[in-house]
Amino acid sequence: MRKLFGNPKQIVTVNTNGKNVKRGSDANEIGILKNHSIISNDGKIEAIVPNDKIDKTEFDEIIDLSGKTVLPGLIDSHTHLVFSGSRADEFRRRLRGVSYEEIAREGGGILRTVTAVRNSSFEELVEIAKPKVEEFIKQGVTSLEIKSGYGLSFYDEVKLLQVINKLDEIFPIDIFPTFLGAHTFPPEYHSDNESYVELILNEMLPYIAEKKLAKFTDAFCESTAFSAKQTERILTKAKKLGFSLKLHTEQFNRIGGLDIALELGATSVDHLEVLENSQIQTLAESETVATLLPGVSFFLDYGYAPARNLIDGGAIVALATDYNPGSSHILNLHLIMSFAALKMKMTMEEIVSAVTINAAKALEIENETGSLEVGKSCDLAVFDADEFSEIIYSVGQNLTFMTVKNGEIIYRKN
Amino acid sequence: MRKLFGNPKQIVTVNTNGKNVKRGSDANEIGILKNHSIISNDGKIEAIVPNDKIDKTEFDEIIDLSGKTVLPGLIDSHTHLVFSGSRADEFRRRLRGVSYEEIAREGGGILRTVTAVRNSSFEELVEIAKPKVEEFIKQGVTSLEIKSGYGLSFYDEVKLLQVINKLDEIFPIDIFPTFLGAHTFPPEYHSDNESYVELILNEMLPYIAEKKLAKFTDAFCESTAFSAKQTERILTKAKKLGFSLKLHTEQFNRIGGLDIALELGATSVDHLEVLENSQIQTLAESETVATLLPGVSFFLDYGYAPARNLIDGGAIVALATDYNPGSSHILNLHLIMSFAALKMKMTMEEIVSAVTINAAKALEIENETGSLEVGKSCDLAVFDADEFSEIIYSVGQNLTFMTVKNGEIIYRKN
Repeated sequence: MRKLFGNPKQIVTVNTNGKNVKRGSDANEIGILKNHSIISNDGKIEAIVPNDKIDKTEFDEIIDLSGKTVLPGLIDSHTHLVFSGSRADEFRRRLRGVSYEEIAREGGGILRTVTAVRNSSFEELVEIAKPKVEEFIKQGVTSLEIKSGYGLSFYDEVKLLQVINKLDEIFPIDIFPTFLGAHTFPPEYHSDNESYVELILNEMLPYIAEKKLAKFTDAFCESTAFSAKQTERILTKAKKLGFSLKLHTEQFNRIGGLDIALELGATSVDHLEVLENSQIQTLAESETVATLLPGVSFFLDYGYAPARNLIDGGAIVALATDYNPGSSHILNLHLIMSFAALKMKMTMEEIVSAVTINAAKALEIENETGSLEVGKSCDLAVFDADEFSEIIYSVGQNLTFMTVKNGEIIYRKN
Repeated sequence: MRKLFGNPKQIVTVNTNGKNVKRGSDANEIGILKNHSIISNDGKIEAIVPNDKIDKTEFDEIIDLSGKTVLPGLIDSHTHLVFSGSRADEFRRRLRGVSYEEIAREGGGILRTVTAVRNSSFEELVEIAKPKVEEFIKQGVTSLEIKSGYGLSFYDEVKLLQVINKLDEIFPIDIFPTFLGAHTFPPEYHSDNESYVELILNEMLPYIAEKKLAKFTDAFCESTAFSAKQTERILTKAKKLGFSLKLHTEQFNRIGGLDIALELGATSVDHLEVLENSQIQTLAESETVATLLPGVSFFLDYGYAPARNLIDGGAIVALATDYNPGSSHILNLHLIMSFAALKMKMTMEEIVSAVTINAAKALEIENETGSLEVGKSCDLAVFDADEFSEIIYSVGQNLTFMTVKNGEIIYRKN
């Protein structure tokens, strides 16, 4: 099946010349083509050719993209999309001046979501998640990571991962499950944190590895969550079991998470709001992706990660929504891109690299997608825009016209 | 024609007990009903009744709103929606570190939009504006203000107002035109500002009044735009000619605009980012609405208007998008509501009041719409939400399920 995605106004290839990553200032080179079209063959990109070299009789299907802007399918590499229960009223009370602590004392916060998730069946969780995945698809997202972490028991963590795997089955986009049993300590282990770590090490990780329920293992290394030592034990065991690694780290405090992640060769380190300049060089010299989550800084109203220093220092920077009910209830990757522009002073080009090829690297799919290069999957995000800048400039507006996964049109604006 | 909008999960009436405004802390009382339905008769609200008092045989049409949340139709009382040309590339260059001044020297900024508008025909401007108005309708907006101000010549200002009037004709929502000839000085009057003021006073205002092309006259009172004296002459003349008044004031500098607006009994004063506490009392004791535009503070990255002090001081506070290509390219009233919550510490209830009844007062339509009270227009914004807080909490997501204007369904999510 040969298809022509014909005559867009602009194609942003994010061409990497085969490197499949945009490190540091490379992120500013995103390969803009005009007067070209994209040929897909059996779901892969066969060629990107000048319009005047095209023989239209050679295709099974021609999709006219006149006036549109084409980017590689967008990638959200950090979400907590599967949960149940709303925390809108809690948010409302916080705005009225009620403190987090008070809300937590009354059973609010993350443990409220844990209770709701434990009380929800597999089927209910799938149904609640479906429109949210659809929402991402309508934004041009073709690859998506989703974490567990609201179950915090063997049964409920496995249930969450099964839900995430089910969503991958249901939807045409690629969904990557991450095991985040080490998100926080569940109430039943409140006075015995070590036993919960043992449960993760001895029960959860081996089972999830055996059943291949997750590609990544992640943890929240923070003074109010898992210590550096606990994090190290969990990630080391996970690595032995064959998981790739991610880590929530340097969000509110620096307690050693980054060093552990780099030592273990984590695929990404996420958050980094309190990263110090002295920490940048080691990170920048590694293959670990720095995944920044400006939605959290916006939503909780605290400092943004040092995106400029990271990029200027040569790091690989990705952006993600961190969509979750407590700290970033923002189901909108385009808005995150606008935050990155306005609040972290990333250039538009750097932002495009951060939600395409670098986000692909954060999911270890950079050889298959994340840029429009010959042989890669034909994953496209097509916008009603004269040029890619408009996507970021049109804050809070969804300009997506079409989403294409493996050469198939999976969404078209009506 | 009697219709039943039946069985929503929550109705937020914004009941005013006939006062048709929410001053100061009154904005926190927004009248939440459960187990009620709304009856419309010939486009007006006939009654809001308990579900168990309803005889379903009495209606010509029953619209099932089970599980939904109903608010009064939302109102955006400050936009510059009609323009042509994109300034995305300028925005992109600004993020790369190019200064505003440099961009302006190269012909960028507001005067670039003026050039584009002057080069666009009436028909072109209507076509460009139509999808934008549709976007607002999909957000539950049922009343909308649009300003001129990118023409800055007799011909082009009249053209813009004709476009705005045409949009009001085309769309089922109410669109209110504001004459903003005093937006900035056009290049041809660069060295002779006074002559442009004379043109406004002697040519534009009388013609626009005679042809009834605008309900409001507005001006930009700012050190880089119109002086207090020039503003006073323009608004005084406008008032004599029968216009209601608005004023862009105290945005970057305090040069006397607020006092003039209050003295002339302006319907609203808009912006107020640099308002001082000493100025609040006079404003709070007036009938003038304080229209706050947090999208501009977000987009240009400077201080927010003192919403809390205004409300706590007893002022009438409205919120609007200020949608425009230069300082708030945010075609999303819900996002503005989220900004107000997160960045101006307004409560969710105050925010609802600010985009319904108080925005209605800023357009002098508070007796006809802005709350769900018997005799008012049946203008509804219906959301896929268990309660109204979700609209503000779901940052960057559009939960609108249905928009109703004068009892007619004008948008329904498919």
